[in-house]
Amino acid sequence: MARSRAMTVDVDFGEDGLVPAVAQDADSGAVLMLAYVSPEALERTIETGRAHYYSRSRDELWEKGASSGHTQDIREIRVDCDADTLLYLVEQNVGACHTGHRSCFYRTVEGENVGERVFDPADVYDD
Amino acid sequence: MARSRAMTVDVDFGEDGLVPAVAQDADSGAVLMLAYVSPEALERTIETGRAHYYSRSRDELWEKGASSGHTQDIREIRVDCDADTLLYLVEQNVGACHTGHRSCFYRTVEGENVGERVFDPADVYDD
Repeated sequence: MARSRAMTVDVDFGEDGLVPAVAQDADSGAVLMLAYVSPEALERTIETGRAHYYSRSRDELWEKGASSGHTQDIREIRVDCDADTLLYLVEQNVGACHTGHRSCFYRTVEGENVGERVFDPADVYDD
Repeated sequence: MARSRAMTVDVDFGEDGLVPAVAQDADSGAVLMLAYVSPEALERTIETGRAHYYSRSRDELWEKGASSGHTQDIREIRVDCDADTLLYLVEQNVGACHTGHRSCFYRTVEGENVGERVFDPADVYDD
């Protein structure tokens, strides 16, 4: 596909300094998770080629998979029309979800489990 | 796939009463947009089978495509592990983005246009 070159998009981090980022499996297209990204997290993601986020509960920058090893290698970063949401296209190592599922969206809202379990959290997290 | 029946998931709408919802094309897997959902928007989405959201800027419930005709027919609604993010699997009519693109994520963060333009906004929106 012919791609037009243009200016780097100015991401609108808004009042709280964070934007939501959707992580999508670059191969299967599965939506894996949603987390929040600060300017520094985006910078680190671009620099390292591995997905970084900002934890609102722990109030800190984190690299996905830093403790579990289930890192996300970035293939492409997209931004939406309003430049206030990111899409990380990633190569997900093992699974994205701390429950052991490949994707955090493993349930329907009716409570049916439609997800694939790819690891046992007891083997991965000490807690 | 065998699906286990369980209780309807209690969505955590948090302090501001909204959760982010990712809309994904149920056929192609493309991530189309992200918007916010109130309890009432989720209820209307389930009742009607068409995607509803809550506009933070206009402070009102809205049905996607109500003015453009570019509605989203719901095929499935998923919820993430923390029950604070939704995934709408939709059949998107025409295009999701007000810019005329199929998906709102039509640009990389470097500013390259990688999206498909499917309509001319001038033909769809007044003013």
